[in-house]
Amino acid sequence: MNPFYNISSPTLLLDEVRALRNIRRMAEKAQRSKVRFRPHFKTHQSAAIGEWFRPFGISAITVSSVRMAEYFTANGWRDILIAFPVNPREISAINALTSQIHLELLVESTEMVKFLALNLVDKTDIWIKADCGAHRTGIPVNQISSFVELAREIQNTSNLNLRGILAHAGQTYHATSKKEVERIYAESFQKLQAVRMAILDLGYAAIEISWGDTPTCSIKDDLSQCDEIRPGNFVLFDATQLKVGSCVEEDIAAAVACPVVALHPKRGEVIIHGGAIHLSKEFMDNEGRLSYGLIALPDENGWSKSIPGAYVRSLSQEHGVIHIPEESFTRIHIGDLLIVLPVHSCLVVDLFHHYLTLTGESIPIMKIK
Amino acid sequence: MNPFYNISSPTLLLDEVRALRNIRRMAEKAQRSKVRFRPHFKTHQSAAIGEWFRPFGISAITVSSVRMAEYFTANGWRDILIAFPVNPREISAINALTSQIHLELLVESTEMVKFLALNLVDKTDIWIKADCGAHRTGIPVNQISSFVELAREIQNTSNLNLRGILAHAGQTYHATSKKEVERIYAESFQKLQAVRMAILDLGYAAIEISWGDTPTCSIKDDLSQCDEIRPGNFVLFDATQLKVGSCVEEDIAAAVACPVVALHPKRGEVIIHGGAIHLSKEFMDNEGRLSYGLIALPDENGWSKSIPGAYVRSLSQEHGVIHIPEESFTRIHIGDLLIVLPVHSCLVVDLFHHYLTLTGESIPIMKIK
Repeated sequence: MNPFYNISSPTLLLDEVRALRNIRRMAEKAQRSKVRFRPHFKTHQSAAIGEWFRPFGISAITVSSVRMAEYFTANGWRDILIAFPVNPREISAINALTSQIHLELLVESTEMVKFLALNLVDKTDIWIKADCGAHRTGIPVNQISSFVELAREIQNTSNLNLRGILAHAGQTYHATSKKEVERIYAESFQKLQAVRMAILDLGYAAIEISWGDTPTCSIKDDLSQCDEIRPGNFVLFDATQLKVGSCVEEDIAAAVACPVVALHPKRGEVIIHGGAIHLSKEFMDNEGRLSYGLIALPDENGWSKSIPGAYVRSLSQEHGVIHIPEESFTRIHIGDLLIVLPVHSCLVVDLFHHYLTLTGESIPIMKIK
Repeated sequence: MNPFYNISSPTLLLDEVRALRNIRRMAEKAQRSKVRFRPHFKTHQSAAIGEWFRPFGISAITVSSVRMAEYFTANGWRDILIAFPVNPREISAINALTSQIHLELLVESTEMVKFLALNLVDKTDIWIKADCGAHRTGIPVNQISSFVELAREIQNTSNLNLRGILAHAGQTYHATSKKEVERIYAESFQKLQAVRMAILDLGYAAIEISWGDTPTCSIKDDLSQCDEIRPGNFVLFDATQLKVGSCVEEDIAAAVACPVVALHPKRGEVIIHGGAIHLSKEFMDNEGRLSYGLIALPDENGWSKSIPGAYVRSLSQEHGVIHIPEESFTRIHIGDLLIVLPVHSCLVVDLFHHYLTLTGESIPIMKIK
């Protein structure tokens, strides 16, 4: 039966065929590059989708919080990296996890190394976070002496094992071409290599480099310079990745089906039930205006190519205001469904309790907050 | 015990004393103005907080979705207005509700009036939505003939009872002064009056005017021109309402406690666990830069006045980047909690499963998606 038939309110759709193809493509690239593939599970946030990675030999994963690590531990994962700075208020939960699984942590300051030296019960692998220009967390990649100082501090603790340097060049999400993504990667990697060399001089046997971000991992063919890659968004992709060039539209595997509740042809606008609580308020530039998503129509295979010129113009709590160009307006009626291709799929997934697949199955999403 | 002591991850705080004071103030103003107070429950989304309205004689409420109506019906409310255009895909659920409670609905097109005439089982009160300039839903308030046409259509149905005209001047949220809010209200109301007169000419005995929006209902002393007011945000307020002038900072009753996980003094930035999945990506202008929230510190009474010049500069899924001016930087340490005063409390509440009150109680939030 048509999976859209029973949809009465905003519903998160998952195109399983696309998601599986996205997983296969990245797993095969990692294999060809001989790099460890440690996918980030913060995007799909689902035990069931996590299982789709196992046939590709994936046993190590990345998560973005201690609670997410607990959820995937409860769902059978035994090698988990929390790619978020250690929060000292969660040390009890961290110690509970290290007693059950192989857990890896992130540090960026001597203060936190000292805290972990005192408070971690089990010997634990850690990574030093490098800031390659995203200016979120990490030691600026040019400050080699700070990395060396931290690595020396770690050397002096008995319960920490330095695994390597971890980078997430989040600025690639704002890149406007594949070339820019390649450039960010090349420049960052050269600096990370210099950091690695300096740390190796302290007598470490090996220092790995772990690289994140879907744009780089999607756009670069050869990832063999890295020891580990941690993309997450690539499972579902979204309008942001489409713009950067990480994917084509036919790779986008998640979308939100929203009922049309009003037509305003004079304004060129359609009102949907589908607001900030369904689509998030993540925005992107659409030729000088803010856009909160692209618009497609349901079809027999899932959803159509996006309607040229149509986009989510504004969002309130439950309402979405959709701009529809004049030539497409007559195709839309009250009671129809519009399919919103999200700006940022990770945030949209987090807003729902389950996915509806195109074959009509419901897949639960982790709910932990 | 200090309610902050056990907080290890981002937590939604509720200052009960402030919320109760906000409810009392609005209820008393409605009483003085002799206007029906039909509070919007989409902000707090909580059966427990709903009960706080009952001592003020409130028995009629507003919600923004059929599912929210179901939730509050299950929690003992018997007079509910769904202030959102009827979604024909939800007609079965609507008919189930009208068989249990007094439900009121919103229309803005003859198409939907015809649909309801055919499909509504019980006789139902409806409102015509007027667009007073927010350009979201409704008939533009200047198009009197369209209102008259719709009112005539309703007159010809046996199962619809036209209650009146309903307005939500959402543009007040972007007002930059109390004066501007007062002006929007005065101009809109004059036009709504003209619409009322024209509809009364059709032979209706009474046509009410229902007015929404927290800025107007908070800023205007006398609301007696309206028959009904439907503010919602005023229970919690937020940084947007503070900027408009709807409240003072001591009225803001909800905030998110976020652990500090990294310090970057050279950048003047602190990193918190607290990202888009906790604070939403709702933004406001902060002297030409985007802000995702104001910053306070925990104190013995809840939280301090916001730190001058501090704000949430950017958000990713789990990380918040907080700008802290140099003079306040030394007050903040890894492991501390920062208290984020949200830009839009309704969206933040929707992201959590419960509130933590300042006396340490947990209050569940509706979870329906």
